[in-house]
Amino acid sequence: MSRYAYVNGRYLPFRDAKVHIEDRGYQFGDGVYEVCEVRGGRLIDERRHMVRLQRSLDALRIRAPMSPRSLSVVLHEVVRRNRIGYGNVYLQVTRGVARRDHGFPAPQVKPSLVVTARPLNRTRNEALAAKGIAVISVPDDRWGRVDIKTIGLLPNVLARQAAIEQGARDAWFVDKDGYVTEGASTNAWIVTAAGAVVTRPADHGILRGITRTVLFDMIKAQGLWLEERPFTLAEAYAAREAFMTAATQIVLPVVRIDGHAIGDGKPGPVATTLRRDFHLYAEQS
Amino acid sequence: MSRYAYVNGRYLPFRDAKVHIEDRGYQFGDGVYEVCEVRGGRLIDERRHMVRLQRSLDALRIRAPMSPRSLSVVLHEVVRRNRIGYGNVYLQVTRGVARRDHGFPAPQVKPSLVVTARPLNRTRNEALAAKGIAVISVPDDRWGRVDIKTIGLLPNVLARQAAIEQGARDAWFVDKDGYVTEGASTNAWIVTAAGAVVTRPADHGILRGITRTVLFDMIKAQGLWLEERPFTLAEAYAAREAFMTAATQIVLPVVRIDGHAIGDGKPGPVATTLRRDFHLYAEQS
Repeated sequence: MSRYAYVNGRYLPFRDAKVHIEDRGYQFGDGVYEVCEVRGGRLIDERRHMVRLQRSLDALRIRAPMSPRSLSVVLHEVVRRNRIGYGNVYLQVTRGVARRDHGFPAPQVKPSLVVTARPLNRTRNEALAAKGIAVISVPDDRWGRVDIKTIGLLPNVLARQAAIEQGARDAWFVDKDGYVTEGASTNAWIVTAAGAVVTRPADHGILRGITRTVLFDMIKAQGLWLEERPFTLAEAYAAREAFMTAATQIVLPVVRIDGHAIGDGKPGPVATTLRRDFHLYAEQS
Repeated sequence: MSRYAYVNGRYLPFRDAKVHIEDRGYQFGDGVYEVCEVRGGRLIDERRHMVRLQRSLDALRIRAPMSPRSLSVVLHEVVRRNRIGYGNVYLQVTRGVARRDHGFPAPQVKPSLVVTARPLNRTRNEALAAKGIAVISVPDDRWGRVDIKTIGLLPNVLARQAAIEQGARDAWFVDKDGYVTEGASTNAWIVTAAGAVVTRPADHGILRGITRTVLFDMIKAQGLWLEERPFTLAEAYAAREAFMTAATQIVLPVVRIDGHAIGDGKPGPVATTLRRDFHLYAEQS
């Protein structure tokens, strides 16, 4: 657990880290977030995460709580105070505290900023990657703008919980046409029998993952065959490999979908290589 | 503004009313809410609101934070401490405080309960009803379970804000087939040229409003002709009357939709009568 959190201008002991009940994040889900991997005490792909944060804020017309430079100082300070070597740093920006009313508050209302950091267990994560994980599929009934990284994550919560209750680790959303959109907090990928590495284009139907973007560079650099197109659940069942990407899990092989073994039921060479080499392509700050 | 709020077991001065940053309401929108009208210091339709609250909690598998009897005591106490004659009482229940993880926390994690109350300006509300309001239509791109009254209200926030910026008071959501679903925090109604009072059936596409339910009783009792069916935006433009219902606005005539005058552009007799007589049919506690 985080020992310190940054909350609206102050570094607080974690148990005292509180926000007002009329913070619009609490009453409306009116906010956005980012999670960066921390490795050797450094932030991975911070710049790209901050670009995406600004994109989310712009989409919702929430003011940035501070300059990018100041925000970077806060992120690093929270990592430092919590002595995170390997872990993640989480930040959340909401439209601020105002009398409850659906419409936006007055322009002078300041956005809220909360930052936490937490260590992760690398041995456990590596063991998970070595074994591969199971996912289930669930119907994608989320709202139309999941490309914005909002804190309105209830459908994702319910999907993840359904996965856990079925002995799986994540859920992949499937749209009305039978295409996989993304995982509950991850992007979804397959490697076809022909060897194409396939992931869905970043339209309004998925979040444009940072790890996903870095993988595009890697795939090109390694001479792999990338196809950015939707794929069906049936294609995924029949794939040679499947995997998912996320900032704090990098590349995680998927060896079972809805009980169907993928390929030979073990992590495949493409996912394993992409995971191994990821940090050669990511930025550190 | 509320002077006192109930937060997880304590009545607090409003400015001190805070929740932990890892409350799942703040990080995931993992919670539900209710708003009751207060009139003469009494709660209107409390019983029905509490039944609906339990339905929302059941749908998300969140434990009730306390017994219905205790919750009623808290609601009345918050109204009393804030000396609310005419206004509303708001309650919010979330899945509680836990280390950030999409899946549900351990069963022993207690749900959070927050209750606030606020006076409303009756003169202003009556003037609004006498004049009628304008609404705009917006595409309904919300998730598939808007029948659950969750705090994930960002699409509603954006719709309401769009309305305000277009000089209107509310937005009506329109589904892919051209049918009106509901307002940003209200149910939508029309009265056809033939005299039918029409509102959409309560499927997964709308929230089953309490005021809406009371109106069903009134409409039957008054010998009006009720049609519970979807209606299109075109039907609404051509309607004799339009109105919306919500707990704290009761029945509010809609005199303009997307700039089209409805009927003669003034509040009609059906809406006006339903508003006038509403409290003869509602319950007080």
